This record gives sequence, structure tokens and C-alpha cells, in this order.
Amino acid sequence: MQHVDSYLAQHREAHLEELKEFLRFPSISALSAHKEDMVRTAQWLAAALERAGLENARILPTAGHPAVYAEWLHAPGAPTALVYGHYDVQPVDPLHLWETPPFEPSIRDGKIYARGAVDDKGQVFAQVKAVEALLRTEGRLPVNLKFLIEGEEEIGSRHLPELLEQHRDLLRADVVVISDTSFFAPDVPAVTVGLRGLVALELTLRGPRRDLHSGVYGGAVQNPLHALVQLLASLRSPDGRILVEGFYDKVRPLSPEEREAWARLPFDPEAFREEVGAPALFGEAGYTPLEQVWARPTLEINGLWGGFTGEGTKTVLPAEAHAKITCRLVPDQDPDEIYERVEAQLRKNLPPGVTLEVRKEKGKGRPVLTPVDHPAVRAAFDALRETYGKEPVPIRSGGSIPIVESFATILGLPAVLMGFGLPNENEHAPNEHWDLAQFDGATRTLARYWHKLAAALGPGARG
Amino acid sequence: MQHVDSYLAQHREAHLEELKEFLRFPSISALSAHKEDMVRTAQWLAAALERAGLENARILPTAGHPAVYAEWLHAPGAPTALVYGHYDVQPVDPLHLWETPPFEPSIRDGKIYARGAVDDKGQVFAQVKAVEALLRTEGRLPVNLKFLIEGEEEIGSRHLPELLEQHRDLLRADVVVISDTSFFAPDVPAVTVGLRGLVALELTLRGPRRDLHSGVYGGAVQNPLHALVQLLASLRSPDGRILVEGFYDKVRPLSPEEREAWARLPFDPEAFREEVGAPALFGEAGYTPLEQVWARPTLEINGLWGGFTGEGTKTVLPAEAHAKITCRLVPDQDPDEIYERVEAQLRKNLPPGVTLEVRKEKGKGRPVLTPVDHPAVRAAFDALRETYGKEPVPIRSGGSIPIVESFATILGLPAVLMGFGLPNENEHAPNEHWDLAQFDGATRTLARYWHKLAAALGPGARG
Repeated sequence: MQHVDSYLAQHREAHLEELKEFLRFPSISALSAHKEDMVRTAQWLAAALERAGLENARILPTAGHPAVYAEWLHAPGAPTALVYGHYDVQPVDPLHLWETPPFEPSIRDGKIYARGAVDDKGQVFAQVKAVEALLRTEGRLPVNLKFLIEGEEEIGSRHLPELLEQHRDLLRADVVVISDTSFFAPDVPAVTVGLRGLVALELTLRGPRRDLHSGVYGGAVQNPLHALVQLLASLRSPDGRILVEGFYDKVRPLSPEEREAWARLPFDPEAFREEVGAPALFGEAGYTPLEQVWARPTLEINGLWGGFTGEGTKTVLPAEAHAKITCRLVPDQDPDEIYERVEAQLRKNLPPGVTLEVRKEKGKGRPVLTPVDHPAVRAAFDALRETYGKEPVPIRSGGSIPIVESFATILGLPAVLMGFGLPNENEHAPNEHWDLAQFDGATRTLARYWHKLAAALGPGARG
Repeated sequence: MQHVDSYLAQHREAHLEELKEFLRFPSISALSAHKEDMVRTAQWLAAALERAGLENARILPTAGHPAVYAEWLHAPGAPTALVYGHYDVQPVDPLHLWETPPFEPSIRDGKIYARGAVDDKGQVFAQVKAVEALLRTEGRLPVNLKFLIEGEEEIGSRHLPELLEQHRDLLRADVVVISDTSFFAPDVPAVTVGLRGLVALELTLRGPRRDLHSGVYGGAVQNPLHALVQLLASLRSPDGRILVEGFYDKVRPLSPEEREAWARLPFDPEAFREEVGAPALFGEAGYTPLEQVWARPTLEINGLWGGFTGEGTKTVLPAEAHAKITCRLVPDQDPDEIYERVEAQLRKNLPPGVTLEVRKEKGKGRPVLTPVDHPAVRAAFDALRETYGKEPVPIRSGGSIPIVESFATILGLPAVLMGFGLPNENEHAPNEHWDLAQFDGATRTLARYWHKLAAALGPGARG
């Protein structure tokens, strides 16, 4: 019997060609112009799952973009894992900063460049190829597997809770396994045990009924752009602390043990600064960068616009000003409560001469912490250790995967976040890429993982 | 001999059709895409000036958009007036707020709607038709006239100072007459004796080298949008006072007489508030709205942008943030000095973690005050009084006509600002329009004005 590793090595070129096909679909969930592309991507993925040997592949429609399902259930008595991922990707603007077009995958220096290369099409594809390798070499899987790959992760998984409710039986499992995170560093494999939560809002300030001539009216009418900068500035102290009343009330303090463990990780603030290319690091006083990103909440302006933004000068006092804001949350902050507190603070601090409209955007998520000693997490450590010959580390991520909370609440599933990205691969930015050595490691590790999981969980409770 | 008023009444329909032709040209000087349209507009205007009976009409090229010149110099011994106006217009965005397209003139309720209807194509056209009416009825003009109609007023008259230097002899005159302002109110004719000056700048804050994922990095890297709102908020106190050091140092205080005279003008703050449609008025404490707009300087954000501004949510921590700012200046503030003070304050208040680039935009202008007792100003009062049967008022405007300063410094000309707009005609905004009764009054008043000016100035010093 051929070993999975040798099968993967032998078929690597073909697999990369197939990955490129997957990456060529412009599956941008945020833009309604790509609605048809989303359907085409889902159909391609369903076919790819069947080609790999999974069965009953199908499109699960939602009120938004569809999800894709497939299964392999021929391991009676063994545990059942649900593999979750997403085939949708972030928007690509600013387009002119891409060295090669975002939907024309290009391999340079052992990395594959494309929107979705690492977040998350590439990692989903690695999951598929791990299964294929096991089936083609061993003829069977050591566990029962169900794949659920959705199309709305980048817009907050709007319809997935509904879908989980609707297909509660179909999706029954013992654990959900997600490859949508990163190693701590190259050669430092990691399992992510904590994620920040998210709540998003958009606000509009309205002043005069119409855009005014800033000469004829300027000085006697509130300028919504001035009101906006004043209002937004009032939400954060100059040293980076969020000034929304009660914002930090439910934040679980870091234990001295966690702070010490994180301080031992190979993290160089100056290298981090160079990587992001900022003139200096900046964050809440009293916390290290890792603590700021992993264990402290944020209130971040993601977009700001109003007035004349074209070429040259237009002396306008505009009628409206707009901003988009997201808050990243940590245990035990509640998204709904934080939204209410932010909205209340905005209303309290509202400058005179304008009205305020605040809209909660879809896509909130609770912060998540998975126990480090859960057998499925320990199995992940074992698989990583065996593939890489290094001791993996339990880490957190500053990002959010809102769906992880839904898997816990709706399906009662613990989550194993075993991702194979590397830091600094430009997910959500121009020139997103994925190191192909990580692709190779991911397929090998994931094939091993299903054996470790079978051993760790024993005869499945729900298989 | 037919009277000018009856000539104007008789040809009104034909004149309005001709005005519509003029308004159909999309002569937006700020947008380079309209470069050819600017040339076509100038050519049309030169032909229209010749049709009206002016002579030697020609295009005066500049390094930017061309100006148009024409003359009538057959009044030896009489004074010479230079008529200045502009054929360029403001951009039209947001386009969707226009009830009829900006370059398809439409007459509704006795008003003509189009970009440029009042600012300034319509008023330039009234100047042309006043000359035509005099020449067709009286056979001659009581003064020598030179028309100089430029194409860069809305972008700060970038090349006009050069042009004035270059054609110093051609443009020799006793006074410059400009119709680019408004009545104080319907039935309250006015001559504008004061204008605010202008200085414009654009600033860019740069943080990380590329757009970052706000989850993965948020909390440890300065967000340029937060830095921008903090920086801009630091320039103005919540009660509307500009916090740039030395900003008010050279502001000439209002005399008690001026404040009393302005307090007697028919101005209703609540009607003003309703007109602009703002929830409340807002301005520097201790000053009335008229004082705020006419005699106090401003620092106004005209545009603001950065990050994701499209549909939905993108959790980005952007690399850059941008703002456009103009300051309106009053006597005796100096545009260069104010620019330096603003830039210095921006550098002083710059938050950590970002770099600042400030660029001075072209199109600055000094504030202007014309003596109320100048004979050419008194002639304007006489012409308005005779046409309207009301006592005109000397007013100021919060707007800027940077070129007025150049006429004074380069050609030594006093300026008479006799405009026929009405307040609230949406110049610089969607649905710009001009009351056609004002068009009628403008042509009749201007025809009279040349007689009054001939009498007031007597045999011209430079004719």
C-alpha cells in the first residue's frame, strides 16, 4: 500500500493545477455583482469533493450564497468529524497594488499568489486532498467525515446559523475541524484555541439637507465631516484605550500564567513592526503586542467617507458623513451588549447640528476559547508534532470566525482550529499568498489527524 | 430708438435658448476628462461675444484651460471697464440628487436649472446680453468695455495671474466689474464689498505599508483612520473655534457700526436654518450667523476618505487616510501664513504610528474689502436703485473670488461686485438654478450701469 505522503508527493503538480482552477473563481461574497460566480464556485467545489472520493456532494441553498456539503460515512463505530471552511473571499481593492491579478493564480518563490490562496480556498483544498490521499492509498478513512464549506464567511456567515438549524441531523458530529488559521511562525506549528468576536456597525451623520458652498455657508452651519471626526475621536483616548462606557467591564483578565507563556513565544516586536511597515507600533498601554491582539478588544474604523474626494478642490460643506466600524471582542464580552454600548456612546457624544443614524451590520460573533486539554485538540497536537518534528503551541488569534460560536450553540460541537497559514500572507490585502510548503504540510498533517482523532475519541458517540 | 428694456423683453425667448446652449457644455474645470469640453465652451463663448457686437473676440491660451477675450473700444474719452466672469463650473456629484441632468437645462417655475445657471455662466451671459441690447438700440456703448471670461475660477484661477501679467496692456482699464455674487435676499439688491480669502490643502496619513486584517493586527498597529479623526478633531474646539495657533492673530475685529448695520439687515436665523435644512445652526460662539460667514475665518473639511467604503463589511485596517481642507480667510489674514500655521499645527498634533504628508493646493486668494464710497460702487448702487426701486445694501460674502485680489495687485483695478444670484440657488450643489426674474433684472441693470459709470468716472484716465 502506497503511503499517503508518497501519494501526495506524486500528485503534487496535478493538485496545484486543480487548486489554481479553484482560485480562478472570483468568489467575492461582499459584492452582489459576483452572485453568479459564487454559484459556479460552489458547483466546482461539489464536483471536486466527489472526485476526491467523498459522497452525496450537494449544494445547500441559503437566503444568500449557497454552502457545499459532502460526506464519507463508512466507519461505523468511529467518531464523526465535521470539516468546516469557506470558499468565499474578500474584495480585492485596491486592485492596482496587486503584482499579479487576484484571480490569476501565480506561483513565485514557492508561494501561490491569489485572492483566497490561504483564506480559505487553499486550506479547504488541502482538507479535500488529505481525504483523497487516504482513500486512494488506504481505501478508507479512520473516521466518518462531513464537509460543510460555506460562501458567506467574509460577510459574517449571515445565513449559516439558519442552515445549521435546518440541517441539524445531516450535520450531526463529534467535533468540528477548521483550517482557517495560521502557524505562530514558520516552523512553529500551532493550534488556535481562542478567537476574538466581532460586531459591526455603520454610521451616518446628516447636517444640511444638501451639499452647501463652504464659502457662502461655512462658519454658520455644522460640517458633518467635522462632527464625524469629533465624534469618532471621542471614542478612543490618544493612548489607544476605548472610551465607550462599560466597554471593558466583561473582559476576562489574562492570568499571569498566560502572560508568561506568551512572553516565551518567539515574537520580536521590531520584526513585527517591519513586517507591517508602520513607522512605529501603537496600542493600548500596559500590554504587549500579542496581548493587544489576542486578549484585548478593539474598536476600529474600517472605512470613512464624505464630501469631495476627487481630483482637485471642491469647496463643499457636505450634507452627509459616513463611517464603518468593527469591534473585536474577547471573552466574556457580548456582541449585542457592546453594540448597544457603542451606539449609546455615539448618541451621548453627538456634536450639535447633525443627526445620527447607526445601523448594526450583519455578521457578529462571540469570542471563543477551546479547552487546551480536549482530546480532539490533543490529537491535533499529536498530528502536527509527528509531521513537523516540533512541539506545537496553543495560541489565540485576533481574528474572528463567527461560525465557531454557532457550531457550539446550535450543534454542541467543540472546535479544533488547526490552520496552516503563515503570518504575513496578506489575507484581506493585495498580494494574498500561501507558502506551498505549508500546503504540503497541511495535506500530510490532516491525513494523519484523522487517525489520531479516531484513537483519541474512540468509538464515536454519534457516528 | 427702441429702449434697451423693450429690446430685452422682445428677445427674451431667443436669449434663453442661447443661454441653454451655453449651459449644455459640461465645462467642469476640476476634471481633466473635460479638457476638450472646456475648449469647445470657450469657442462658443467667443462666437457669442461677437454675435452680441463685441469685437476682436479671441481665445487666450493658458497653461491650463483657456480664457476668452473680446472688446468694444469706440468711446474715446470715456472710462474703460473690464468685465470679468468665468465659464467653468463645479463638478456635479452626487449626480443622483439632480432632479434633471446638470447639463440639460430645464426651466421650471420661472427658474432655469443647470450646473452653471447662476455660478457663473448665467451671469456672464447677462453681461453679454446687456451689451447687445445697448448696441442694438443705442448703436454704441457709453463706456469702453473689455470682457475677460476665464475657465479656471472653480479651481482657484490657477493661471489667471500669469495671464494678467502677460496681457497687462490689452487688459488696461479703470475698474473691473464682476457679476458672480448674489442679492442679500429677493428684493434686496446688494453690492458685495467684501470677500473671504481662501487657502486649500490636502493631507495624507500613512501607517502600515499595506492594508491589514483588522482582526489579525488590530490593537497593536495605529489605524490611520483613527489617527486622522484624532488629528482633525484637534484642529477645532467642540464649540467651533479653530485651534490652530495664531489662526486669529491678524483677523480685523468688526467695528460696532458694522455689527449694528448687519443686525438691521432682514435676516431670520430660523429661516436660514430651514433653508439649509440642518437640525440646528452651529458656529463660533459670540457671533451672529452673518458675522460668522462674512467676517470670521473658517477651517473646513471638504472631503474625507480611507479604508473600505463599499457595500457590506470589510474588516480592514487601511494603510492610508486622506482629507481635503480649505480655510476661508478674512482681512488681514495672509493665505501663505495661514497655510504654514495649519501645517505646523498638523505636525505638532500628529498622533504616533503614522506619517503625515501635507500638500498645498493651488487656488489661494487674499480676503478683499472695497471702499463703499468708490464712484464705481456708487454707480452700481444708482443702477440697482433705478431698476428695482429699492435702496441697495453693501454686503460681504463668505465666498472667495481669488482673482479679485489679482486685479488689484497686478492691474491696479478696484472691483465692483454686482451680482444677481439669489441666496439658496444651490451653486456648488445638486439642482443649481437661477431665478429668471433675476436674469431679466441683471440685463436691465447692467445696461443702465454703463451709463452711470460713464457719468461717475467722467473722461477715462486710461480709455
